[in-house]
Amino acid sequence: MIRDRDFIKNSTVPGPTKEEIRCLVLCKSELTSQDIVVDIGCGTGGLTLEFAKRTSKVYSLDRNPEAINLTSKNLEKHGLKNRVQLICGNAKDEMDKFPDFNVLMIGGSGGDLSFLIEKGFSKLKKSGRIIITAILLETALEAIETLKKFDMDVEVINAAISRGKIIERGTMMLAENPITIIVGVKRN
Amino acid sequence: MIRDRDFIKNSTVPGPTKEEIRCLVLCKSELTSQDIVVDIGCGTGGLTLEFAKRTSKVYSLDRNPEAINLTSKNLEKHGLKNRVQLICGNAKDEMDKFPDFNVLMIGGSGGDLSFLIEKGFSKLKKSGRIIITAILLETALEAIETLKKFDMDVEVINAAISRGKIIERGTMMLAENPITIIVGVKRN
Amino acid sequence: MIRDRDFIKNSTVPGPTKEEIRCLVLCKSELTSQDIVVDIGCGTGGLTLEFAKRTSKVYSLDRNPEAINLTSKNLEKHGLKNRVQLICGNAKDEMDKFPDFNVLMIGGSGGDLSFLIEKGFSKLKKSGRIIITAILLETALEAIETLKKFDMDVEVINAAISRGKIIERGTMMLAENPITIIVGVKRN
Amino acid sequence: MIRDRDFIKNSTVPGPTKEEIRCLVLCKSELTSQDIVVDIGCGTGGLTLEFAKRTSKVYSLDRNPEAINLTSKNLEKHGLKNRVQLICGNAKDEMDKFPDFNVLMIGGSGGDLSFLIEKGFSKLKKSGRIIITAILLETALEAIETLKKFDMDVEVINAAISRGKIIERGTMMLAENPITIIVGVKRN
Repeated sequence: MIRDRDFIKNSTVPGPTKEEIRCLVLCKSELTSQDIVVDIGCGTGGLTLEFAKRTSKVYSLDRNPEAINLTSKNLEKHGLKNRVQLICGNAKDEMDKFPDFNVLMIGGSGGDLSFLIEKGFSKLKKSGRIIITAILLETALEAIETLKKFDMDVEVINAAISRGKIIERGTMMLAENPITIIVGVKRN
Repeated sequence: MIRDRDFIKNSTVPGPTKEEIRCLVLCKSELTSQDIVVDIGCGTGGLTLEFAKRTSKVYSLDRNPEAINLTSKNLEKHGLKNRVQLICGNAKDEMDKFPDFNVLMIGGSGGDLSFLIEKGFSKLKKSGRIIITAILLETALEAIETLKKFDMDVEVINAAISRGKIIERGTMMLAENPITIIVGVKRN
Repeated sequence: MIRDRDFIKNSTVPGPTKEEIRCLVLCKSELTSQDIVVDIGCGTGGLTLEFAKRTSKVYSLDRNPEAINLTSKNLEKHGLKNRVQLICGNAKDEMDKFPDFNVLMIGGSGGDLSFLIEKGFSKLKKSGRIIITAILLETALEAIETLKKFDMDVEVINAAISRGKIIERGTMMLAENPITIIVGVKRN
Repeated sequence: MIRDRDFIKNSTVPGPTKEEIRCLVLCKSELTSQDIVVDIGCGTGGLTLEFAKRTSKVYSLDRNPEAINLTSKNLEKHGLKNRVQLICGNAKDEMDKFPDFNVLMIGGSGGDLSFLIEKGFSKLKKSGRIIITAILLETALEAIETLKKFDMDVEVINAAISRGKIIERGTMMLAENPITIIVGVKRN
């Protein structure tokens, strides 16, 4: 994984998704090098870059131009630029333009989560996965309920990670905010 | 419990111990209104004030004069000043001057944890309790090992508390750093 | 606090609420000895007993006769029987019969959470508190949304507690399931 | 990742390491297909199988013959048998026989942790990694202190994972026991 410190950051753009959470999302995505990924709400590009290291067919979208600019810079820094197509716009309007995909990652939905899951489901290949990372209780629950409605296999993980900061006196455990990862798998 | 926001704070003094941790420490102390408490490393006074609300015989010590000053101000703000004797100094040197006590709270030990537990044990009344709050792995382990050496009943609790911040979009869970609470009870 | 092991248990009745969670709930209840408490879904009686140790006006209700029987036995064991009125029935039907109260504790709602909060709010004294403990994401969110609707001050705490089991080789941290505690305070 | 349920289990052998922890360990190992891995205390084979999916040069060791037998069965089930050399014995005695390696994974040390890290360090290739998973506070601290002694870059992660169990009434979060993952990277 790329270390958190190796991303170019910008105080107005959220992210990058912390390394351990990127790691768990990547595992849950079961990505192969042939897969097509759509990453909605790419922010700093944390997950986009991880996807791009594993497949060359990544579409990343954010409605904030600064996020797109920042993701672009991070892709460039890590030599991954030609593996990702960046789109600045509303996911709601753009979803139709993507080809069918294997993984839909939703890190930010701009209030359209149910719609995006519904739309995403219709474009999701067999055994494909929709993954939502939620920092709000409300997002977690909306994701679970919508995925259940489409009869997907739903998995819910809450990850509370602490990192040890090694100081002279010893090892101080510092908490990252807990994240809920919701995964829906399309049945065949 | 006193709310975190109701303490006077100072950026150079740690604390106050977060409300939920104070709550757990208070429960584990099984304090009665007749008990004598010694609070070492009182910092902002978070635990000192909670003890003082429940018994009038509290001795609080810190080697940082600013901590003593801040605890004093917080006691005054909450009308608890006459219930606490404040001592600025090294616990190592001061322990002998205290009367025997029911509860020894160690929130900061200045590197003398084992010595303080040993000294504290000799002044601890029957069924009395030594409580250590640890933010370092090393402190937690040193506490456990020293309490076991004196054949105390040892209890270890790790508390990872998140608080929901209610914003317009929903409820965002924000983590407090995990704290380990170690309790030793003197057998009869 | 009463230790978990000091409750009479029954495999068909949930609880007792773990000691640390009881501790946090009690702190958040800000109970005084004059307060009237209604405890809905009392189960094994964990919280009922803690309330009863602090006030003599506790009404505890469960629709499962075995829960009422078990709570009764635990009250008797701990000498608290004359401080609690036990009711076997549906909270929905019984709420009207209680006098106005200071604390409404909802540990189990039988699917009527919003109704119970609404009803409870109408019988809640000024500065009174409604506390919900949730093991389901759905319950936590329904509680938050309903309390917000009544313009209460809402506080949300998620507690992930681990306990150290001291074995020969060392200290093994064992997790309790995380609980969300939601508190609503009635404004004056 | 292989799902927890897809391992053959045996009540007398610990493991498999939970999926999310395997995922985090794999990320932290930064394994490439050319790497040599030594996995000490392989238990059910959870980590061994994940390593074997990514490199064909894995040495797995356990002193419990049942663990070796179980790991062997799991390797066979997942078609990975020819990628792993299994050794039943004491790590202390066997370490010298391995070729120099890129990743040393210690999931169980039989009380020889410091010795194994010391020995492992001497056989670790440049930029190689020693990873320890600890369920005991004592193991975590011994690992940190020993890795620091060899001037490795040390990283400490505590992972408290809960999984949502979807039942009729909603989504119940069930905690896995917290695990500390300690990583040492050999500087060049």
